[in-house]
Amino acid sequence: MVNDDTSTGPSGYVQPRIDVPALTALLDGEYAEIRDLVRTNLAAHASVLDEADELGVDAFRERVREVVVEMAATGQTGMGFPPEYGGGGDVGASIAAFETLAFGDLSVLVKVGVQFGLFGGAILQLGTERHHDAYLPDLVTGKLMGCFAMTETGHGSNVQALGTVATYDPRSQEFVVTTHGEQARKDYIGNAARHGEVAVVFAQLEVGGRSEGVHALVVPVRVGGEPAPGVRIEDDGRKMGLNGVDNGRIHFDGVRVPREALLNRFADVTPEGVYASPIAHPNRRFFTMLGTLVQGRVSVGGAGVNAAKVALTIATRYADRRRQFEAASGAQEQLLLDYGLHQRRLLPLIARTYALHFAQDVVRGQLHEVFSGPGTDDQARRRLESRAAGTKALGTWHATRTIQECREACGGAGYLSVNRFAALKSDSDIFTTFEGDNHVLLQLVAKGLLTDYASDFEDLDQLGMVRHVAGLAVETVLEKTSAHKLLERVRDLLPGGDEWDQEAGLLDSDYQLAMVRHREEHMLAGAARRLKRGVDQKRDPGTVFSQVQDHVIAVARAHVERLVLEAFVEKVRGLPEGGEKVALGLLCDLFALSTIEADRAWFMEHGRLTVQRSKAISREVNDLCRKIRPLAVDLVDAWGVPPEMLRAPDLAG
Amino acid sequence: MVNDDTSTGPSGYVQPRIDVPALTALLDGEYAEIRDLVRTNLAAHASVLDEADELGVDAFRERVREVVVEMAATGQTGMGFPPEYGGGGDVGASIAAFETLAFGDLSVLVKVGVQFGLFGGAILQLGTERHHDAYLPDLVTGKLMGCFAMTETGHGSNVQALGTVATYDPRSQEFVVTTHGEQARKDYIGNAARHGEVAVVFAQLEVGGRSEGVHALVVPVRVGGEPAPGVRIEDDGRKMGLNGVDNGRIHFDGVRVPREALLNRFADVTPEGVYASPIAHPNRRFFTMLGTLVQGRVSVGGAGVNAAKVALTIATRYADRRRQFEAASGAQEQLLLDYGLHQRRLLPLIARTYALHFAQDVVRGQLHEVFSGPGTDDQARRRLESRAAGTKALGTWHATRTIQECREACGGAGYLSVNRFAALKSDSDIFTTFEGDNHVLLQLVAKGLLTDYASDFEDLDQLGMVRHVAGLAVETVLEKTSAHKLLERVRDLLPGGDEWDQEAGLLDSDYQLAMVRHREEHMLAGAARRLKRGVDQKRDPGTVFSQVQDHVIAVARAHVERLVLEAFVEKVRGLPEGGEKVALGLLCDLFALSTIEADRAWFMEHGRLTVQRSKAISREVNDLCRKIRPLAVDLVDAWGVPPEMLRAPDLAG
Repeated sequence: MVNDDTSTGPSGYVQPRIDVPALTALLDGEYAEIRDLVRTNLAAHASVLDEADELGVDAFRERVREVVVEMAATGQTGMGFPPEYGGGGDVGASIAAFETLAFGDLSVLVKVGVQFGLFGGAILQLGTERHHDAYLPDLVTGKLMGCFAMTETGHGSNVQALGTVATYDPRSQEFVVTTHGEQARKDYIGNAARHGEVAVVFAQLEVGGRSEGVHALVVPVRVGGEPAPGVRIEDDGRKMGLNGVDNGRIHFDGVRVPREALLNRFADVTPEGVYASPIAHPNRRFFTMLGTLVQGRVSVGGAGVNAAKVALTIATRYADRRRQFEAASGAQEQLLLDYGLHQRRLLPLIARTYALHFAQDVVRGQLHEVFSGPGTDDQARRRLESRAAGTKALGTWHATRTIQECREACGGAGYLSVNRFAALKSDSDIFTTFEGDNHVLLQLVAKGLLTDYASDFEDLDQLGMVRHVAGLAVETVLEKTSAHKLLERVRDLLPGGDEWDQEAGLLDSDYQLAMVRHREEHMLAGAARRLKRGVDQKRDPGTVFSQVQDHVIAVARAHVERLVLEAFVEKVRGLPEGGEKVALGLLCDLFALSTIEADRAWFMEHGRLTVQRSKAISREVNDLCRKIRPLAVDLVDAWGVPPEMLRAPDLAG
Repeated sequence: MVNDDTSTGPSGYVQPRIDVPALTALLDGEYAEIRDLVRTNLAAHASVLDEADELGVDAFRERVREVVVEMAATGQTGMGFPPEYGGGGDVGASIAAFETLAFGDLSVLVKVGVQFGLFGGAILQLGTERHHDAYLPDLVTGKLMGCFAMTETGHGSNVQALGTVATYDPRSQEFVVTTHGEQARKDYIGNAARHGEVAVVFAQLEVGGRSEGVHALVVPVRVGGEPAPGVRIEDDGRKMGLNGVDNGRIHFDGVRVPREALLNRFADVTPEGVYASPIAHPNRRFFTMLGTLVQGRVSVGGAGVNAAKVALTIATRYADRRRQFEAASGAQEQLLLDYGLHQRRLLPLIARTYALHFAQDVVRGQLHEVFSGPGTDDQARRRLESRAAGTKALGTWHATRTIQECREACGGAGYLSVNRFAALKSDSDIFTTFEGDNHVLLQLVAKGLLTDYASDFEDLDQLGMVRHVAGLAVETVLEKTSAHKLLERVRDLLPGGDEWDQEAGLLDSDYQLAMVRHREEHMLAGAARRLKRGVDQKRDPGTVFSQVQDHVIAVARAHVERLVLEAFVEKVRGLPEGGEKVALGLLCDLFALSTIEADRAWFMEHGRLTVQRSKAISREVNDLCRKIRPLAVDLVDAWGVPPEMLRAPDLAG
């Protein structure tokens, strides 16, 4: 697998050698063992890829359940649960396992996510010992399947406005759960249509006539395979993809559950009907509860990146085998990957995939730390939540874009179901929406930046102005905005002085970092000023926000891209000298420069890029593509997608 | 349906009223009647949309055949054939009918395309009376189903390198058709797996030991429902979408067909085995034959635009009904379409859809003229071929991008198969590849521009240098490149003098046109210079081309966008005063400015946009979005997508 084409070009450039197994070990990192277990399990159950096409919806759902339970028996899916309940007690490993599972059939992945991440995660994080004892042992083995019933037909992103109500009845010491109208039915709920026996239901808690906001309760939804009394279940039916997951709708008609059904880690109701919570403020309580579920976003982001790897592995191998036109009359046809355009289509995507891989390492590490430690560092939690939201958005958009590009790059063959693209594309499409719509998530990221910017998070929270992510607390967020402060920060970003960015080498990663840092700071200050101006002019906050919204989204994107580049640069800097370091350095440069190139209009508009330098960056991107081209197959092979998962013998060889 | 929100804003802007039926009539134009027939047929067969989900592959293929035959009986699908064979004798109407069919199930569309466009088109255009008499009557009714067997496993874009061989045997006066190796099997051929009885097979013609290049012959592939002797057929199996079309692979093992099977409009073989053609040069002959099939590209481009209309109709109506977050505490939640970001996501796509609609009118008109007249104007044919290639590429990419954006803009509901997105997305995905891979098509466009630029087409052709689209005839294409000529042309583009583009109003369509014309000219000259320099330096032509390839693609894209904008501007200018003209004017401005905005980096890099003006364009795009927002529902309703085709009651109301 070692590339033997080492050669010295006219410019003295020496093409690096990549030791593919060594690069795989570097990528797998501390979780190599669990990743290899998942690879083994995927290969053992490879037939599920065919069955996704061959079986009808009902049969495929049963098959996926079977595979999930079999995988659970190997310990693969329970890494995040405490050992005393049959888990592995290692949150980071549970995310790594989930990411790796994304190499395979994505219905299996999402069923695992629903069962162990969402349902299991809610029981673990929102419940207390009584819930853990009651549910975790059977949940971890997959014997007890459950639902995470948050989303409603009428409310996806705005969870605080859910319409399901759970009213406490002190006489019977029960909660009465009711769906108020069609818009309040639980919808798109995994495990609902077929396999779920209980559901964690998010509902407005009403105690003593007072609404205490959204809380979660465990509600049995099936008894002996039939809907429980008062529960009505509909099947969401066939979907674009993920048809091995049984999504459905749940209506509750005065369903009674005991007081103990309330997942009471953060709030409880006494038998007499007194509501109490250690967190005084309702919004803070709500966001604390939601915050414990952040692992879902970390998982999906990583899964998106790994789904992209499958597509890129196929398309890159294909491009290294497939010949198209003759370069000159009578000559042999050229390999696709020798065309400049084809390099431009695939290689920056490979670079971005590597970048997102290392960024995922960082967010997974933060998650592991927050959830393995004492867990009381609010700032670390907020940082994690913002970062998880951002990398989820970028990782899943990357998956959608990459899979599409790879399919097109494989022509008609890419359209046949026997290859992976059909399944990858339709199964992964919803990743940009579930676990938080990507645009809403970026607004969440931006909100954090704007409030940090105003250094005023606590005040805002007390004013109750940060409740609505989309509302962005326009009125008050920006009072402390200071143009002076901004300029100082920008200057700090340019280590070689104010003109340094016009002189530094394009391949100097300090330059690349300074560029993306500057972009973020400048965009943030601009969005803040625009919001403040609107408020100062006493305009309607909704209108002000609406007009600045694309700017706000751009801020968040710039922020996350900066984090991603920092993760990549830091990783490369820490490597020992050798072929892998050189190759990853090329990829890091390609990621950085193609990111700057994609937004070069902004950099020119804001005086940080001259026309000449902008053109030079495009030339450098092309040059990097040519240098990386001979390494391309090794670079995708190093991801270690099991060959059985490629399912594209005609394409990938 | 008339919008009653006429109001005068603070700036004196009066919001136009749109008369929706009048706008529909304007869009349908001269083909209103056939379009309405298709709409009626689509509504009558609306159940096929459900059946696509409910039936297995085999049953759905039969169902689609049935629908196609029933539609054929209404005259809808035969408009392009001569009346004496049961056709409508109106090429333009046949394209309009096909475009409208794209509102419905796309398997039906593609089966119609295979049968009447590709198979029927080849018989009509490449055959002579004997073939017309033998095949057209039953072909037009759909009684005789046939294949268009061009693509091979190993050769998609490079048709001249096909591996199937048809050798003339003068003793028996037959051609012997043989597949040489797995790479030469015909692949992805519609109607092959199940319904085709005959195939138009493209093969290397060998006569008297001499290869005469690729020609087409009619070969029976099934007799009594079984593969004909010597013919082996495989099923391509399940695909990402279009599973109502029976694509398959065909191998020929010494299959004998009579001499008369050769479609002999452009070349023939005498009984004795003498090859003769009125077109002396093999390349010219080959491209003349292929050129007659241009209607396929015109059809697919228009179909892509109409598929995008379906997605936009659903997403726009949804965004006008769905509420998300409260704008301020306690206020009602805002409609999605009132958010600036959501406007930015959907409205430029609506504008571009209108632009591509009017550009499609132009290319359809050119097609009609070329194929209805005496048809000997080579220049008109080449212009048509280039334009068809370009609008096909832009129209189908637009479909892929728009359908994806609309799905994401409808959240989880957009993922359910009961809505149209799942089918639209998977069925239309291959549009970017079939009837010519989009990137290859843009290279074809660029080749035409570069050769026109050198004013030297004939010479090149004689040198045999234009055979390979991808090769682009690097060595000789650019000898006449003249930088001086370029500058004069650029100056001509700026009617108000050299500085005029810095002063003209952004909403002046002459300014917008000058910008996109300048971009095209400048890019073209630049690509030409880079190619010439590489050749002058005696570098390997393949390498030279590879390095300039992305530039070449950019030239083609700029060219086609210029044509699209010209079509839109001209259309709007020709309209009578009124609400529709005002509304289309806003859309035309939005299309022009969002197109310039998307490439503003290029304009800044090339001195045609100052930083201030670039920012002003972005502000203007936002402003146009706000003006168009109240018109959005009327604008999508005017496309006249039959309500039965939306299949999204929960989304579109």
